[in-house]
Amino acid sequence: MNTAELAETCAGAVSGGRLGRMLDELAQWGAREDGGVDRQTLTTQDLSARRWIAGLYATRAGYKVAIDAAANIFIRREGNDPALAPVLTGSHLDTQPAGGRLDGAFGVVAGLEVFNALDEAGIRTQRAMEVAAWTNEEGCRFSPGLMGSNAFVDPTQMDGLRSVLDAQGITFGAAVDSACQDFAESARSNGWHGFDAPMKRAIHACIEAHIEQGPELERAALQVGCVNAIQGVRWYEMTFSGRSSHAGTTPLAARDDAMVKAVAAAHAVLGMAALEMQADPSLRITVGRFQALPASINTIAREARFTIDLRHPDDKVLEAMQVRLLQLCAQASHTAVLLCKPPVPFDAALHQLTQEACTRLGLPHMSMLSGAFHDAMPLAAHTPTVMLFAPSRDGLSHNPAEHTPIEDLTACTRALAFCMTRLACPN
Amino acid sequence: MNTAELAETCAGAVSGGRLGRMLDELAQWGAREDGGVDRQTLTTQDLSARRWIAGLYATRAGYKVAIDAAANIFIRREGNDPALAPVLTGSHLDTQPAGGRLDGAFGVVAGLEVFNALDEAGIRTQRAMEVAAWTNEEGCRFSPGLMGSNAFVDPTQMDGLRSVLDAQGITFGAAVDSACQDFAESARSNGWHGFDAPMKRAIHACIEAHIEQGPELERAALQVGCVNAIQGVRWYEMTFSGRSSHAGTTPLAARDDAMVKAVAAAHAVLGMAALEMQADPSLRITVGRFQALPASINTIAREARFTIDLRHPDDKVLEAMQVRLLQLCAQASHTAVLLCKPPVPFDAALHQLTQEACTRLGLPHMSMLSGAFHDAMPLAAHTPTVMLFAPSRDGLSHNPAEHTPIEDLTACTRALAFCMTRLACPN
Repeated sequence: MNTAELAETCAGAVSGGRLGRMLDELAQWGAREDGGVDRQTLTTQDLSARRWIAGLYATRAGYKVAIDAAANIFIRREGNDPALAPVLTGSHLDTQPAGGRLDGAFGVVAGLEVFNALDEAGIRTQRAMEVAAWTNEEGCRFSPGLMGSNAFVDPTQMDGLRSVLDAQGITFGAAVDSACQDFAESARSNGWHGFDAPMKRAIHACIEAHIEQGPELERAALQVGCVNAIQGVRWYEMTFSGRSSHAGTTPLAARDDAMVKAVAAAHAVLGMAALEMQADPSLRITVGRFQALPASINTIAREARFTIDLRHPDDKVLEAMQVRLLQLCAQASHTAVLLCKPPVPFDAALHQLTQEACTRLGLPHMSMLSGAFHDAMPLAAHTPTVMLFAPSRDGLSHNPAEHTPIEDLTACTRALAFCMTRLACPN
Repeated sequence: MNTAELAETCAGAVSGGRLGRMLDELAQWGAREDGGVDRQTLTTQDLSARRWIAGLYATRAGYKVAIDAAANIFIRREGNDPALAPVLTGSHLDTQPAGGRLDGAFGVVAGLEVFNALDEAGIRTQRAMEVAAWTNEEGCRFSPGLMGSNAFVDPTQMDGLRSVLDAQGITFGAAVDSACQDFAESARSNGWHGFDAPMKRAIHACIEAHIEQGPELERAALQVGCVNAIQGVRWYEMTFSGRSSHAGTTPLAARDDAMVKAVAAAHAVLGMAALEMQADPSLRITVGRFQALPASINTIAREARFTIDLRHPDDKVLEAMQVRLLQLCAQASHTAVLLCKPPVPFDAALHQLTQEACTRLGLPHMSMLSGAFHDAMPLAAHTPTVMLFAPSRDGLSHNPAEHTPIEDLTACTRALAFCMTRLACPN
């Protein structure tokens, strides 16, 4: 068989049944009564899930497991040539406190199902393949997110990250050390095959599968999204000042009302946003938080503030929009840029490979942007990277109601299997 | 001397020095480091202040003190005819947690300074006079406010009020009982002269002195406000619904953003408010609270809500404004009326008397509305009632920076002395 035929064979061996069962089992760790999952990073639930996942493969012939200095775990399926850099996939096991069963978990399980399919089809690849479970993608226990994948790509960040505290005052460093110890003990007592996984090591290519977390694939009735870039994101907080006084006793002329200024600016921002988002379907402008102080019914606000979340795949557009947003908030007493992440374009050849996979496998697909952050974002600075999306029912994510039909998850996993096999086998 | 002359004599005997010293001493109970006062109702601080105030007069000849079933305290200066209903003044001793030295305290101390002036001038009045310190005007420890004065006028409310809890789970009833016991012990051990003070007893007239808590007197450079009514107040909460989704992944067409609806409605409300407040100086419209859920920078709001505080002295105007506000918030999923208090007009003859007092005493004054609630509001349903205002520097109140020049407090106390003497003496 040539590589394309091997890739099709592997894709054909992907089993929706196995995939679904693995997702069901994984969802037990941190299961919520409402059907969702609460498995925050490096908690007991997360450690149990990690132990289970690693244990599934760690004693099979041809497999090895490892944990790195950021407690990222790797499950490796050896290739014929151990000197070649591996093809990497995977995502994260941690969830939001009221999270779903698929965000992160799908990307890890999809990678492992590619291993199962390769095993079933009896395919040996030239390069090793690895499935990563990156630590703290969500950023809800330790802020910000993407700590594991960022530290992998830039280990110099690790010192600073280790001192980040959770709400209980536990440092990220202490939680990482516990996870590494837990992993080492499991490895010792269960005879796991291990390998050394230094940070920033060579990776041949990275493909992350993930649910879309938006409505576009479902609306277009498609099964796979071939993601060509992650949007750039900028976060702003606009603060307006006034003078607190009594709502009943203060006449118009004596009022200096922060609420009046903030509402006028938010209204202008949202009016501009609606027009511009209509004109440019890649643009996103959202006002998510709005608060006034002292937040008293009968007191004129001394301060009012709101946030703006701005996203676009083109940094020049972000820059131009920022100028307009700041103009519309000219009355603000303080404007802060809380976050500024430039767009991350994915590797063009890999993007083409994902499209080829879908075409060869007859999977209805489209090219699209990622509106959310993913571990693939830092990885793209280190190695050629791309993402595959599966649709999200009603666009819902970070929500116990998060759901994707198993056929769509299977389709996305088949595309992943095709791409990984192509990348791991010689032409 | 005829009554008017007696009244002028009493007003002339009012001492700014005594008044200021009494205010200084009172401000020690609950003194904050920033110069403000934290003396919430029926706390240790409040009980100490009550004990001190009552103790000043309780053993003097011609004076008696009492506490009623709502722990309102009364200091009574006997008149020649004990069968006649007393003339009542006073206000409250409790403050907001970050309150000032004058809100409430001034009205109590002004009444006592009238007693001092009468004593100094050797004036015996026909009717008794009483200074009340009403329990829980502020409503910050036990909600709502005006409990003491409301219960005095309508004792049937007392049963319900007694079960109201503070943040520590203490009932208002238990706090009232402790205060009554504390008062009884002080009376016993110090030989206080007491009298029986049933709720809802006959009162000849009531005049409450208070700081304006707004900027109008200061702006007009006047010393006394002759208050002819308390504005009617209505509070609304407008709630707008949407669907939570990811700010980065949700295109315009898939958005149902509660923030967009709430900001548009708030903008319409505030636009209308500015125009109408300009046209009608008695109108007040304030948006004091604005919040969105889940209050996340990168999540489209599933709910957003704001409050409206509407005030006017004419109930018909309030009704017409309510119709317009509800029209402007037609997109709301829920509108709630949180409070609806009709305007309270004060007694016309008493209002005329306050103006006469200022004219006779040469005090620069004007007629005005009260934008805030006061104990005089429930009292007005029970007996002819009126209020006198002293200016507030920068209109500030409920604030440690609350301040009124002693000359203005003295001027207002002189007007009070004139009115009380006129009311307590035969023509």
